Amino acid sequence: MQQLAQDSAFMAQAIELAKKGRFTVAPNPAVGCLLVKGDEIVGQGFHVKAGEPHAEAMALRQAGDKARGATAYVTLEPCAHYGRTPPCALALIQAGVKRVVAAMQDPNPQVAGKGLALLREAGIETAVGVLTQEAEALNKGFLKRMRSGLPFVRLKMAVSIDGKTAMASGESKWITGEAARADVQRERALSAAILSTGSTVAADNPGLNVRWAQLPVEVRAEYPLPALRQPLRIIMDSQSRVCPQHNLFQHREPVWLIGEAERDISAFPDFCRHLTLAPDAGQSKLQALMVELGRRKINDLWVEAGAVFAGALIEQNLVDELILYIAPKLLGHQARDLCVLPHLQKLADAPLWHLHSMTRIDEDLKLVYTLRNA
Amino acid sequence: MQQLAQDSAFMAQAIELAKKGRFTVAPNPAVGCLLVKGDEIVGQGFHVKAGEPHAEAMALRQAGDKARGATAYVTLEPCAHYGRTPPCALALIQAGVKRVVAAMQDPNPQVAGKGLALLREAGIETAVGVLTQEAEALNKGFLKRMRSGLPFVRLKMAVSIDGKTAMASGESKWITGEAARADVQRERALSAAILSTGSTVAADNPGLNVRWAQLPVEVRAEYPLPALRQPLRIIMDSQSRVCPQHNLFQHREPVWLIGEAERDISAFPDFCRHLTLAPDAGQSKLQALMVELGRRKINDLWVEAGAVFAGALIEQNLVDELILYIAPKLLGHQARDLCVLPHLQKLADAPLWHLHSMTRIDEDLKLVYTLRNA
Repeated sequence: MQQLAQDSAFMAQAIELAKKGRFTVAPNPAVGCLLVKGDEIVGQGFHVKAGEPHAEAMALRQAGDKARGATAYVTLEPCAHYGRTPPCALALIQAGVKRVVAAMQDPNPQVAGKGLALLREAGIETAVGVLTQEAEALNKGFLKRMRSGLPFVRLKMAVSIDGKTAMASGESKWITGEAARADVQRERALSAAILSTGSTVAADNPGLNVRWAQLPVEVRAEYPLPALRQPLRIIMDSQSRVCPQHNLFQHREPVWLIGEAERDISAFPDFCRHLTLAPDAGQSKLQALMVELGRRKINDLWVEAGAVFAGALIEQNLVDELILYIAPKLLGHQARDLCVLPHLQKLADAPLWHLHSMTRIDEDLKLVYTLRNA
Repeated sequence: MQQLAQDSAFMAQAIELAKKGRFTVAPNPAVGCLLVKGDEIVGQGFHVKAGEPHAEAMALRQAGDKARGATAYVTLEPCAHYGRTPPCALALIQAGVKRVVAAMQDPNPQVAGKGLALLREAGIETAVGVLTQEAEALNKGFLKRMRSGLPFVRLKMAVSIDGKTAMASGESKWITGEAARADVQRERALSAAILSTGSTVAADNPGLNVRWAQLPVEVRAEYPLPALRQPLRIIMDSQSRVCPQHNLFQHREPVWLIGEAERDISAFPDFCRHLTLAPDAGQSKLQALMVELGRRKINDLWVEAGAVFAGALIEQNLVDELILYIAPKLLGHQARDLCVLPHLQKLADAPLWHLHSMTRIDEDLKLVYTLRNA
């Protein structure tokens, strides 16, 4: 019982460590590691980005000889395969660690229990399943991709109390307040990629980048400007509405245009690519898109688009989380709707969600809904 | 300092007492009274309904001789006038109370400081302003009517995440879940009157009464069926769409039909009346309605109506609180809107609200918005 309480307390610290990597770590998972000897923390580490040391390696380096006989708390099962860095399970064995507590198994088929098995074979005591839920929440995108091949899709909408996204004229700047918009910047920064559409680009001409100066002050404190990593911008543009003059191309960061036919993009800057979707029989364009993005290691996809695209994603069950910023305004019946659901006729057929969290942000409200039974 | 802490603690108890009357007390205010001698509570009382003893009288009766030298905590200034019961200030003086702490002055012009003055003239120490905000919240309707002559108007809407109240077909049973609907029953029970329209009656044929068996279980525990008081049902029916066959008349409880012209209602049951509105020059029909209802001592008006009526109330600034029950469903662009605001064109002119509270009710969410700067 006391052991369990101690394990939970140290694992909670390891989870806090893991969070330090979450803006930069994709396509890898965010992982934290704490090495504890007696009551003393002798090493801490977290994974910053692909190609750099894993959390365990960082913690072992810090602990040096003190690692011998220590307990390692890791938020994800230590890896067992040679990737860009040597397997962490091996490093833990070599350092003489006595016990390894993992919050959860790594569903990555290259690991999937092999890391823990290696440790046990070396006579190290292992435990799995401490603060699993919190560890799952750290890496929703990575875990979903490992389990299903698909990215974790978060659809963001900023709406009025009556669910409207813009006036009839299209005027929508700004529905929500400054703090809510700063939170959107934070969410963009946490995402590997932002997905939008050619219609949205044509209508609003957004940059779809992270503006560091607009991040919440507590994020700026932990995530300095030189470390800023821009999310990949992915534009579903079947009708070739995006052109090189759009604001997207003001920032020298990758843009992927997606269409269903080949397209000459020689007029676009060199950081722009075009991907041609070729849906399988029975597969929709959007399903094919998600499969392709999963194949290209996109863990977390943040969607900012209009009512038609949002509705299509929803109808096809492709949204894992619906993020609503609700401003305390009423825009009335003439204003624009949140989503177009052309096939919905009966109340009983309406898509059902689960209210995951609600947070007040100044005068606005942030609601996160997850797919029911997801 | 210690005195203040003690005063707050006892006043909090008096406020809890006052709440016991809130289902039945209209058009009077809910009031609680605690008599404390040393550290001992020697008497407690609350006002149940008009014509029955006031909170102070009930507490004094319970305390008997122990009232002498005690401190009285009252959530509202003791009255100074002869109404259906003798003035409470006088009763406190006669009982030999030493000190009176009131949460707030009574804005009722018949009291308005006179009660406290009477006490001071009799040499009783008085204090005002302990937990005033909580005391204000107890009697929003009574206090608004005393201060402005108008009822406190609460507009209720049950909507989907995307702000829709019904499918295009009109189907709306049920958008929200059972617990949210039980909360609506509770809110109806707390209101002196329910306001709806002839169009809503014609479309949905609601009973608009409180169904005791559907009240939340904790409300049923404190509010037994024999004590149940139905709110007055008020139907704005300028086009005479309500007829005696409607479900409204299944319950032998008062119904007021409101129109702008005289109307023969001899075909209706005897518990139905008709009021003819005669707006003053420059006064809208709805403004005239509110003045009339205030004059008829309606403190709390709970509105359940459609998007047009809701929009008209909102545009005319007649809504004090907007109560939204949000179901975790998406109904799409074809579904019916929350409110019709025919004159709103620019985002900057959209009515602004303040998020007063948010409560999860099972899978639904209850949001209460108040008029900004109200």
